[in-house]
Amino acid sequence: MEFLVHIDIAWPADGDAARKEAIFQRELEQGQVLARAGKLRRIWRIPGRWANWSLYEVADATELHEALSSLPLYPWMSITAHPLALHPNDPRVLGIVPQLQS
Amino acid sequence: MEFLVHIDIAWPADGDAARKEAIFQRELEQGQVLARAGKLRRIWRIPGRWANWSLYEVADATELHEALSSLPLYPWMSITAHPLALHPNDPRVLGIVPQLQS
Amino acid sequence: MEFLVHIDIAWPADGDAARKEAIFQRELEQGQVLARAGKLRRIWRIPGRWANWSLYEVADATELHEALSSLPLYPWMSITAHPLALHPNDPRVLGIVPQLQS
Amino acid sequence: MEFLVHIDIAWPADGDAARKEAIFQRELEQGQVLARAGKLRRIWRIPGRWANWSLYEVADATELHEALSSLPLYPWMSITAHPLALHPNDPRVLGIVPQLQS
Amino acid sequence: MEFLVHIDIAWPADGDAARKEAIFQRELEQGQVLARAGKLRRIWRIPGRWANWSLYEVADATELHEALSSLPLYPWMSITAHPLALHPNDPRVLGIVPQLQS
Amino acid sequence: MEFLVHIDIAWPADGDAARKEAIFQRELEQGQVLARAGKLRRIWRIPGRWANWSLYEVADATELHEALSSLPLYPWMSITAHPLALHPNDPRVLGIVPQLQS
Amino acid sequence: MEFLVHIDIAWPADGDAARKEAIFQRELEQGQVLARAGKLRRIWRIPGRWANWSLYEVADATELHEALSSLPLYPWMSITAHPLALHPNDPRVLGIVPQLQS
Amino acid sequence: MEFLVHIDIAWPADGDAARKEAIFQRELEQGQVLARAGKLRRIWRIPGRWANWSLYEVADATELHEALSSLPLYPWMSITAHPLALHPNDPRVLGIVPQLQS
Amino acid sequence: MEFLVHIDIAWPADGDAARKEAIFQRELEQGQVLARAGKLRRIWRIPGRWANWSLYEVADATELHEALSSLPLYPWMSITAHPLALHPNDPRVLGIVPQLQS
Amino acid sequence: MEFLVHIDIAWPADGDAARKEAIFQRELEQGQVLARAGKLRRIWRIPGRWANWSLYEVADATELHEALSSLPLYPWMSITAHPLALHPNDPRVLGIVPQLQS
Repeated sequence: MEFLVHIDIAWPADGDAARKEAIFQRELEQGQVLARAGKLRRIWRIPGRWANWSLYEVADATELHEALSSLPLYPWMSITAHPLALHPNDPRVLGIVPQLQS
Repeated sequence: MEFLVHIDIAWPADGDAARKEAIFQRELEQGQVLARAGKLRRIWRIPGRWANWSLYEVADATELHEALSSLPLYPWMSITAHPLALHPNDPRVLGIVPQLQS
Repeated sequence: MEFLVHIDIAWPADGDAARKEAIFQRELEQGQVLARAGKLRRIWRIPGRWANWSLYEVADATELHEALSSLPLYPWMSITAHPLALHPNDPRVLGIVPQLQS
Repeated sequence: MEFLVHIDIAWPADGDAARKEAIFQRELEQGQVLARAGKLRRIWRIPGRWANWSLYEVADATELHEALSSLPLYPWMSITAHPLALHPNDPRVLGIVPQLQS
Repeated sequence: MEFLVHIDIAWPADGDAARKEAIFQRELEQGQVLARAGKLRRIWRIPGRWANWSLYEVADATELHEALSSLPLYPWMSITAHPLALHPNDPRVLGIVPQLQS
Repeated sequence: MEFLVHIDIAWPADGDAARKEAIFQRELEQGQVLARAGKLRRIWRIPGRWANWSLYEVADATELHEALSSLPLYPWMSITAHPLALHPNDPRVLGIVPQLQS
Repeated sequence: MEFLVHIDIAWPADGDAARKEAIFQRELEQGQVLARAGKLRRIWRIPGRWANWSLYEVADATELHEALSSLPLYPWMSITAHPLALHPNDPRVLGIVPQLQS
Repeated sequence: MEFLVHIDIAWPADGDAARKEAIFQRELEQGQVLARAGKLRRIWRIPGRWANWSLYEVADATELHEALSSLPLYPWMSITAHPLALHPNDPRVLGIVPQLQS
Repeated sequence: MEFLVHIDIAWPADGDAARKEAIFQRELEQGQVLARAGKLRRIWRIPGRWANWSLYEVADATELHEALSSLPLYPWMSITAHPLALHPNDPRVLGIVPQLQS
Repeated sequence: MEFLVHIDIAWPADGDAARKEAIFQRELEQGQVLARAGKLRRIWRIPGRWANWSLYEVADATELHEALSSLPLYPWMSITAHPLALHPNDPRVLGIVPQLQS
C-alpha cells in the first residue's frame, strides 16, 4: 500500500551545525536503506523549507511507522501520512509509457 | 518540473448520474492523453472521497494550468498545486532499484 | 489494517423526508453487510450532528474506498480516513480482559 | 459512555533518552491498569507521530479526566476528547459477528 | 453529565418568513420542554448571529443527541458539543453564594 | 453581562512541581474570591487538558479583564472571551425549574 | 461598552440588482439611525469585499444583538463581535488631541 | 489612510517582572507620542489577553510599519494590520453626532 | 501604495458558458483599463484554479476598493487585500537591473 | 518561472541585537546578489511584522530552493512558495505602460 508523507523538520535555528550535518548524513544513508528495501519510492524537497513530500510503499500503517521512526531525524520531524488508494486511471496501473514529443 | 496536485471534485449529490458517468468517461480519456504526453505521471484516489493526489511533470506552472484546465471535470474541481524541488536523496535521482526481500 | 473514519452527512434541511428515510434504511442494511464481512467493526454517532466516527478493518486503502463508496448515502458524505498502526499497548493486542470492579 | 481520544505527545527532540524510556515504561504499565479496569478499550498509533487515537469507556467526562491525568506522560500530552453516542447500527450493539470469507 | 453546546442555525436569507416564525415558535416550546425535564439548563444568544451557546445536563452523549435532535430547527443546525468535567473550584460544587457588594 | 470564557494553561511539562502546586493553590483561592463577588459563576474542566470553560457575570469587558488578570496563573493562560446576549428562551430568564422525573 | 464588529455580506452573485439596491438603501438609513442613537460609532469598508469593520458602543451584548439584527441586510450577514475593554493608553481616555505637524 | 491593527504580546510567563514593567512604561510613553502625532487614534484591550486592537491613521503601510516598529514591545509583538477603506455611511464621514436619549 | 491582492472566482460549474465568456471578455478589457491607469501592475494565474494574485498600485484602500469593484466579475470574486510597505532592499527601490548570465 | 514567496522571520525577542544586525546586513547583501542575478525581482515588507512578500523569477522550484536557502537568515525563516502561471491579461505580458493622469 502506498502512502504520501509530508515531513517538516524543526531544527533549532541556533542548533549545532556540525551535529546537524552528521545527523543529516545518517539520514541520507537510512533513506537509501529504505529505498533499497522498496519502502521509500520518491522524495521531493518543498522549496524554501526543511521539509519534504515523500512516497512510501509498505505493507500497512504499522510498517510505515517503523520505516519513518527509523530515520535519525525522526525526533525533530512533524509528520502527516496520507493513505492512498489505487486510481483506475493511474498511468502506472495502465502501463502507459510517456511518448516523446519530437 | 514536478508538481504534487490535490484535487477535490464537488459533484452535486443529486446530480444527473448519466451525465456524471459520461463526463467521468471523458475525464479518464483526457487523463490518459496527459499520461501519454508525459505530463500526468501518477494518480491516487483519496479513500472515501471523490478526490485524488496526482503527480505532474511539466515545464512550469503555466503548462500545469493548461493540463489541469483541459480536464472535463475541471469546472467541478477544487485544486491545490504544490511545487516540488529535487531532493538529493530521491531514489529516482540516485537510480536506486528496490531489491527483493526473499 | 484498521482505519478510523470520520463521516459527515450533508442532507439538505429541506430535502424530501420520505426519500431520506428510504435511503437511510438502505444505509443501515449496507452497514450491516459491511459488518458481517468484518469490514465495519464499530460505529458511533457524534452527538448533535448527522455524523459518525467508525472503525474499519480492511486490507488497505483501496478496499476501504470500495467499502465506503458502497454506502447509499456516499454522495452526501464528507469523509476523512485516518490510518491506524498497531500500538504495543493495545488491550486487544495484549489480550487484556476488563475485570469487574465489584 | 465511550470517548474517542486523540493524544499528541511533545517530548523535546533533545530530551534525555533514558528518562524518556523510563517514563514510557511507566506509561505502558499505567495504560494496562486502565485497560484491566475496563476504561481504556483500544489504542492505536498514528503512523509517523508520537501520537495515538484511543477509545475509553468511562462513567463520564470527570472519570475520563481522572484516567487521562493518571498517565505518567500526561504533562507532555496535548489531548482532545470526542464524546461518542450510541449508533443504532453499531455492530457491537447489533451483536454482529464477522463471518469468515472462505 | 454537563455539555457545553454551540449551535449555529443556517436559515436561507430568502427563506419563507412565516414558516421560519412557525418553526421558531415550536423551537421555543421544545426548548422549554427540555428545560422542564432538566436537560437544557441555560441558553445564551451569540450577539449578531442566529446562534447560541447552551448548557445541557444529561445522562450521556446518547441522551444529548436525543435532546438536540428533538429540536424543530435541528435540520438547519450545525452543532458542536463540548464534554464538561467537574472542576474542584466550581462555585456550584463549593456551594458559594455571591455576596452583595453594597 | 455574562461571558463564556475558555482558558488553556501552558505550564512547562518539566516545570517545578512544588511551585506549580503553590500557584494552583492561590489560583483556587482567588477563584473563590471571584465567586463570592458574583463574578465567577461556573467553571468546568475540559477533560484531558489543563484547561477550563467558565462563566463570568460582570459589568463589561473591562471588569472581565480585571477579574481574569487577577488570577495567579494568568501569565500562563491563553484566554478567549465570548460575549453572551440574553436568549428569550433561557430557563433562568423564564424561571423554569426542572421537574423530577419520577 | 464598545464592540468591534466584523460583518461579511453574502449576496448571491446573480441576485436581483434592483432589490439589492433597495435593501442597501434601507441599510444605509438604518445605519444612520443607529449612528444618531450613539450605537454605531464608526464603520469602514474592507477593500475588495462587501464587508466591513464597525465600532459599536452599547450597553451590553444584548443591546448589540438588537442593533445588529435591526439591519435590513442582517439575514445575509455573517457577523463576529469582539468585546473591547478599556486600555489605559487609549488616546480618547487620555484626552490626547493630535497636534498638527507643520 | 486608516488601519485596524491587532497586536498580541508574547511575554514569557516567567520573564523578569521589573524589566517587563520598565518596558511597558516606555511602551505607554511611545504610544502617547504616536497619539499626539495623530497616528494612533484609539486602542482597546482584548479582555483576558495581553493583546489589543488599535486604530491607526497614517500615510500608508510604510508609515504604519515605522510607527509599529517604534514601539518598545515590538520584538514581543505578533501584529496583523487590516487596511480600511472609507465607508459611505461612516458616522464620522457623515458628520453624525449622537443625540442624547433622555 | 502597493497592495498584493488574492482573487478567487466562484463561477457555478453549470453556469451559462456564453455568458461566462462575455463577462470574462469585459473583465479583460476592464483589467487593461486599470493597467493603463497604472493601478493594476501585474497579474498571475494560480495554477489549477480560476484565481489570481495581482499587484495594485493605488492611493489607498479606498481607491483599491473602487478599482476592484469596477471589475465585471466582482460579484463572483472572493478577495483578500494584503497591504505592502516599502522594503529597503527592494530591487526596484535600489534600481538594480538584472545582469545577463552569459 | 515566477514564484510569490511569503517569508516570516522568527528572531527571538531577546536575541543578541548586534548579531541580528550583522546577519541582517549580510541578508541585505545576499538579497542584492539574487537581485542582480535576476532571481529576486521585488520584495515588500509586511507592515508590523519581520516578514515579507517577495517575487522570484527562477528556472524552477529547485533553483528557488537554492536561492532561498542561500539567505543568511534562512534558518530563522518560515517560507511558503506560491507557484505563478502566466495570466493572459498581465500588463507586462501585454506591454501596457501606465499613462500619466494629468
